[in-house]
Amino acid sequence: MSFDASTLKYDTNGLVPAIAQDAATGEVLMMAWMNQQAVERTLASGRVTYWSRSRQSFWIKGESSGHVQELVDLRVDCDRDCLLVTVRQTGPACHTNRRSCFYTAVRDGAEVELMQPEV
Amino acid sequence: MSFDASTLKYDTNGLVPAIAQDAATGEVLMMAWMNQQAVERTLASGRVTYWSRSRQSFWIKGESSGHVQELVDLRVDCDRDCLLVTVRQTGPACHTNRRSCFYTAVRDGAEVELMQPEV
Repeated sequence: MSFDASTLKYDTNGLVPAIAQDAATGEVLMMAWMNQQAVERTLASGRVTYWSRSRQSFWIKGESSGHVQELVDLRVDCDRDCLLVTVRQTGPACHTNRRSCFYTAVRDGAEVELMQPEV
Repeated sequence: MSFDASTLKYDTNGLVPAIAQDAATGEVLMMAWMNQQAVERTLASGRVTYWSRSRQSFWIKGESSGHVQELVDLRVDCDRDCLLVTVRQTGPACHTNRRSCFYTAVRDGAEVELMQPEV
């Protein structure tokens, strides 16, 4: 079946969550949002492209930082309302310069920082 | 710093997306939603508990199917608006009986099914 990005189930803002996972290590790097055109641009260019809700514009990941995400595989979930992109990540994925945005764990009721910013 | 679930950034519906990842294999299993109380229940019980948007009720994963998720680690992202739970998954995570909800890949413009339902 050919893929048509218009068949995804976007929320009332026209967005779907997209989870980025490191294709080599399996580490979950970040979650951001895509609209239909961001999905299409990601597939066409091989460069993971989100929709920035704060800036209301396309966000080619790494365009300013150099921390690009090269698309390895794009997956759709059973409800067609969430995406998983596996990527080759250049540099840290998080804007704090940590490898992953999920660097804080909750353990025994306390927040524990698991990663330091890369230098 | 002690963790307070009220400090997460919930959307206008009072929800945050929660990504479930197999703690052993790193496979991303599903994405669902939690409200503040679902986060607190998950941490207190060790059984991953979502908020079902369709049923408007708590959804203790596996309560009816037996396909429970035992919490291994709960992580908060840099923006505090997304969670990652690593879990020990009993049985398939997806309601289609597939291991993961992300069983459809988009390759060369076509949808490709990567997993079969477990029997």
